[in-house]
Amino acid sequence: MNVSIINIGDELLIGQVVNTNASTMSKMLIRAGMDVAEVSVIADSEEAISNTVQRHIENYDAVLITGGLGPTKDDVTKKVLCHFFDSKMVENAMALDNVKRIFESRGYELTPINRQQAWVPECCEVLNNDLGTAPCMWFETQRNSVLVSLPGVPFEMEWLMSNRVIPKLQKRFHIGSIVSKNILVQGIGESFLSDLIEPWELSLPNNAKLAYLPVAGMVKLRLTIRTNTKEVCDSAYISDLLKGLYALAGKYIVGEDCETLAELVHNTLVSNGKTLATAESCTGGAIASKLTAQAGASAYFRGGVVAYSNAVKECSLGVRHETLECHGAVSEETAREMVEGVRQKLGADYAIATTGIAGPDGGSKEKPVGTIWIAVASQDKTVAQLLQFGGNKRQQNIDRSVNQAYAMLMRMIKNY
Amino acid sequence: MNVSIINIGDELLIGQVVNTNASTMSKMLIRAGMDVAEVSVIADSEEAISNTVQRHIENYDAVLITGGLGPTKDDVTKKVLCHFFDSKMVENAMALDNVKRIFESRGYELTPINRQQAWVPECCEVLNNDLGTAPCMWFETQRNSVLVSLPGVPFEMEWLMSNRVIPKLQKRFHIGSIVSKNILVQGIGESFLSDLIEPWELSLPNNAKLAYLPVAGMVKLRLTIRTNTKEVCDSAYISDLLKGLYALAGKYIVGEDCETLAELVHNTLVSNGKTLATAESCTGGAIASKLTAQAGASAYFRGGVVAYSNAVKECSLGVRHETLECHGAVSEETAREMVEGVRQKLGADYAIATTGIAGPDGGSKEKPVGTIWIAVASQDKTVAQLLQFGGNKRQQNIDRSVNQAYAMLMRMIKNY
Repeated sequence: MNVSIINIGDELLIGQVVNTNASTMSKMLIRAGMDVAEVSVIADSEEAISNTVQRHIENYDAVLITGGLGPTKDDVTKKVLCHFFDSKMVENAMALDNVKRIFESRGYELTPINRQQAWVPECCEVLNNDLGTAPCMWFETQRNSVLVSLPGVPFEMEWLMSNRVIPKLQKRFHIGSIVSKNILVQGIGESFLSDLIEPWELSLPNNAKLAYLPVAGMVKLRLTIRTNTKEVCDSAYISDLLKGLYALAGKYIVGEDCETLAELVHNTLVSNGKTLATAESCTGGAIASKLTAQAGASAYFRGGVVAYSNAVKECSLGVRHETLECHGAVSEETAREMVEGVRQKLGADYAIATTGIAGPDGGSKEKPVGTIWIAVASQDKTVAQLLQFGGNKRQQNIDRSVNQAYAMLMRMIKNY
Repeated sequence: MNVSIINIGDELLIGQVVNTNASTMSKMLIRAGMDVAEVSVIADSEEAISNTVQRHIENYDAVLITGGLGPTKDDVTKKVLCHFFDSKMVENAMALDNVKRIFESRGYELTPINRQQAWVPECCEVLNNDLGTAPCMWFETQRNSVLVSLPGVPFEMEWLMSNRVIPKLQKRFHIGSIVSKNILVQGIGESFLSDLIEPWELSLPNNAKLAYLPVAGMVKLRLTIRTNTKEVCDSAYISDLLKGLYALAGKYIVGEDCETLAELVHNTLVSNGKTLATAESCTGGAIASKLTAQAGASAYFRGGVVAYSNAVKECSLGVRHETLECHGAVSEETAREMVEGVRQKLGADYAIATTGIAGPDGGSKEKPVGTIWIAVASQDKTVAQLLQFGGNKRQQNIDRSVNQAYAMLMRMIKNY
């Protein structure tokens, strides 16, 4: 079964907004067992919408459209679809109730222009949009395909995809349910990992599919299992499947069931009740910032020091002047004193420290750009590790260091 | 003149990679005076490529394709284009020299499969790709339109667009040069700004175009001037044009010639030789992290403290226990003590501090989610400001606070 996506909006074509809707929708569809064959991005133009819808309907089983559903004049999607399906516009009772509910909850009066949000082509089925006033519309076409029009606002689109569109598509096209599992792997490159776990991958049942998603020094493995054969696919079944993976690559596996290592660290510390402090030089606050971007981080995150200058390493972290003099800021000794200093000063159970040369400048023959020391500490011990990234791409060196630091912390917490 | 984009790659359709190429290319084209009418994202499939190329060539003046140029079997773009233009594959001398040069510089031996990178359809013109082995190919079609095939690797694509493709398109389609100017505005919403500066906008010459690019509590105005009329368009001319804007909205203008406020702060501190320290509570390291992501930040950034817990606010920043007791962590008094504390402790010329409730939880009736205090300090004075964002979206509250803090610092540095 093939799905296509049409994203409508002038703002997408002038590069003002990166089209994240397409990748979000693709991810959600793939996980739900549907393949995406084409994405078209077009302007808020009646002709472009009509031609593109026509072409997609002729080629795909389901066509998902986002955008152009606002109440202003430049939003023309609804009008075009009404014409396209040779229907007429009617006020939909459920959509009107929804618009009224949202306006009441915000304490606004319903204006005639906003009431227009409840008008839809008569031939469509309205799927209720709990988060917004723009209706989600489901059309059955004469070619036995489906067209769904969704709002372009990302959080409304995502909610509708999860709660309305995907379940309905799965039912309409008889797609069995999908169970998927993320495994976070760190410390081994994608191609080496692929070679290492090949025997396990080949032994997987036919209804299981493995995807490699490499990002900044780690690889997210996603195992997806289709269960249309009605076989049992519970967590015990999946654990059993994963045994072979752990036997081959266990030492590289940092965790499961998360999208990122920052999320894994967050969930782990929230659940074990331990606290964390950070001392960052070359990562410049990125380790703290990715943790505190998650709601609830204050439960475990004591705080951090961004120790960019040597003076700050000394005065805020207690790194000894002689250590910096003898070994330099980028050294195992400094990393160890940073991590132990911040853990004690901030009174945390665990600490992370980074010090290195992110680039593109600042390297030397002994310590080239990409030379980075990372240390983690608990009350019992401190572990330091040297990374030597070949490249001089600053952001890449920072992102990889951040992931390496999270992975080292997880290994310390889990004690392996 | 209408341009279209075709991005080829299975990885774009499974949501593994967000299609940033489309938005990067759109931005570059718009700035160069060309409009983008459609973006298509398709799989590495011969049929899909051939059909989509055919359709785009019939509809647009120039069609830019990315992807599918690697040496492996799943990359089929070159083969499809050769067939499409009824040409034959030949080894191109310049492309071969380029491949050899790149392999030599990396110390690798040239294998037969890599040598294939130098084979191109005979009817195309090769535009040299200084950064990679995949050739950039320019085709003139029978419909008097142009088709250009570029590699999908973002930094190669960007370099080729800037240095080869855009200049050649401008010449081929007689597009005059474009001068553009960014003005960063903060402290006023997009629609209010639009009303305020309307008289100035209406007075702009016909060849000038103004775009509003709102992002996280600020608005980037981009003034683009086409100079195909050969009139003088130097910096004095632009300064003169901007006088009317400054007269109306001067107090909201934070700076010019940058893409972001982080870049503006970075450039300003690098050039004036002053130093900065940060004390972040609710922004959790984001202020430091966005500055240190820029090469050369160590010239001015002394360091920062992420003071998530009250204990850290006291011990690392010197906030008084009584202040926290009497006024709470989210208060003007705490913000002021944080900013003065970090400036002195880290020995910086300027400092920034944030303390607030980013949400979604943690609010109270007196201090709802979105209540955030920001303070900036120099040796001479401290300024604190209360923000009250209505929403409970954590990332949005963080991003807006970061921009507000940068803007307040810029106002203090520029003394207005």
